[in-house]
Amino acid sequence: MSRTTMMIDTGLPTGLFTDVIASHGELVGLVKFGWGTALVTRELHRKIAVLREAGIGFYFGGTLFEWYLVQDRVDDYLALVERTGATHVEVSNGTIPLDQQGKAEWVRRMSRYRPVLAEVGYKDAERSARLSPADWAGAIREDLDAGAELVITETRESGRSGMATPDGHLRDDVLRAVLARIDAGRLLFEAPTKDLQVELIRALGPDVNLGNIAPADLVGVETLRRGLRGDTLLQLTPVAVPA
Amino acid sequence: MSRTTMMIDTGLPTGLFTDVIASHGELVGLVKFGWGTALVTRELHRKIAVLREAGIGFYFGGTLFEWYLVQDRVDDYLALVERTGATHVEVSNGTIPLDQQGKAEWVRRMSRYRPVLAEVGYKDAERSARLSPADWAGAIREDLDAGAELVITETRESGRSGMATPDGHLRDDVLRAVLARIDAGRLLFEAPTKDLQVELIRALGPDVNLGNIAPADLVGVETLRRGLRGDTLLQLTPVAVPA
Amino acid sequence: MSRTTMMIDTGLPTGLFTDVIASHGELVGLVKFGWGTALVTRELHRKIAVLREAGIGFYFGGTLFEWYLVQDRVDDYLALVERTGATHVEVSNGTIPLDQQGKAEWVRRMSRYRPVLAEVGYKDAERSARLSPADWAGAIREDLDAGAELVITETRESGRSGMATPDGHLRDDVLRAVLARIDAGRLLFEAPTKDLQVELIRALGPDVNLGNIAPADLVGVETLRRGLRGDTLLQLTPVAVPA
Repeated sequence: MSRTTMMIDTGLPTGLFTDVIASHGELVGLVKFGWGTALVTRELHRKIAVLREAGIGFYFGGTLFEWYLVQDRVDDYLALVERTGATHVEVSNGTIPLDQQGKAEWVRRMSRYRPVLAEVGYKDAERSARLSPADWAGAIREDLDAGAELVITETRESGRSGMATPDGHLRDDVLRAVLARIDAGRLLFEAPTKDLQVELIRALGPDVNLGNIAPADLVGVETLRRGLRGDTLLQLTPVAVPA
Repeated sequence: MSRTTMMIDTGLPTGLFTDVIASHGELVGLVKFGWGTALVTRELHRKIAVLREAGIGFYFGGTLFEWYLVQDRVDDYLALVERTGATHVEVSNGTIPLDQQGKAEWVRRMSRYRPVLAEVGYKDAERSARLSPADWAGAIREDLDAGAELVITETRESGRSGMATPDGHLRDDVLRAVLARIDAGRLLFEAPTKDLQVELIRALGPDVNLGNIAPADLVGVETLRRGLRGDTLLQLTPVAVPA
Repeated sequence: MSRTTMMIDTGLPTGLFTDVIASHGELVGLVKFGWGTALVTRELHRKIAVLREAGIGFYFGGTLFEWYLVQDRVDDYLALVERTGATHVEVSNGTIPLDQQGKAEWVRRMSRYRPVLAEVGYKDAERSARLSPADWAGAIREDLDAGAELVITETRESGRSGMATPDGHLRDDVLRAVLARIDAGRLLFEAPTKDLQVELIRALGPDVNLGNIAPADLVGVETLRRGLRGDTLLQLTPVAVPA
């Protein structure tokens, strides 16, 4: 699962969702129904039918797992996964008080049911900022060892917390520490802003797995991957003429 | 009219507008055709037909009222309201030189024709900032006494003026002063950004009336109201397990 | 070609693109398929058919020209223009190392094939900032003399470089120097943000040519041109009543 682009659906109307997949589905590796939006989407079954026909996997945001967990209703969550045919499960502790060890235990349990995408990082910017580079690398290692298929690095929808700095750039120190221990192919980087997309493609190459990509940015991200936008053109294009 | 979500249409194409109402119409309490967009929307009649079928009320932005008023053409405005079947009228003085007393007089006059949504606050950030908490509360009280059904608190589409600070947060002092005198059910808070939506739901609960919600944010706002997003999950969700 | 609004398509799905043109096509003078997006748009032919039927011209972003040029493949670029029926060609040096004189030479060459839109300004903010007002005016003059039909002033999609300052406002000194030498009707100002749209309409009047307008902003820009939004209402509306 390399060069995966994970599209986030934050509540598209059904017709537009269908249009996006019909037009750009070949650019989409996975769809996440962001946080708990699935529970307030009346026509979720129609969106799922569209994805099934296109052969695209999907799952629910980690916040939905946390919402069920904090209410001691994980069975209901698993019933939802079963009923909808979600292809993956995200396990995270971005919001609720669940420590890394507890989360890794849930990664282990949930991977009996579906391939698990584990998330590292907190939604709260200050809490994330207190994670040292070694903390990040250790948590990712632990989640993979617990059976996660991929580990997602949190940056929120704003691209300004988690593995991003408050001004929207990658935390280089974290990135270096993580890559020293983990194969980039096992990571899915949340990159909701162009700044983060550009920095990750420049640092890790065009095949880096990118997540939280807005439907409106699918084509833009693909142009960045192919050097067809100013930001990566000179890095990725074979130059044939002397300048 | 509590827990009203007012969606702003800033110029959606007709197909997408129809798609939004078909998919998420049950989340929409009122639609505002923002400022004077109605006059440059060729297929306004089709949008209106969609709303009528869904049983959703609609009105034109206060700026359109001001545009007619400043040209001494209020009769033309009323003819437009009549012709289109707008269910409400917004009366504001956000742009034109019309003082609070003059606006309240227009609230009184217009409420002969339609339920009036009166707006308090100016589009100009500095002018709004000069309104003291007592000014805000007094103006709202005056508009309600003049017959307004609801009073809208201005923050612009950017969420950075009116009742919001230049960095996009609620003016707490204003909010406190207003709530000391006015029932929150008579207020419709413009909350175009997630920050403002979160702050208002945290301060006033999930049933607060929210306005200037973008079509793309309808589902997101509903998840905030239900504690299905990280920002309000721990505040609004009954916790069943020890953390 | 005055009062031209150039809409940028950064990768709309096909259905939405069709919807935008059907609903608001009369507001669109030209469509630019931004940077190299055309090469990753599977259904480009369907979008082009929509534009042809509506009688709207279109072209590919200057970055695509640069991408071909830097690979010494301008013939392939011309073949693409021919095959798709693009009505214009953009010639720019926003990303690749090509000096003003070299660019003007390409303006001359490409205008044998299509009317040329030449672009002045660099994507890199610092590089653009080093262009003096006289540099801007001189480069625009040179491109027009080389045969460009219009000259586009770069501000990027963010509206924060090129002829815009890093905080998103117009560079007044540049604007003054340019207008002293060039007729505004020969300029197409990139104005992707409302701030820039408002500043340009206030400075140059409602008929200023505006570019990089997002599909979602077409109606909004038209209301600014007609004084139907707070930002330009008092400037552009004949006031009939004493305030």
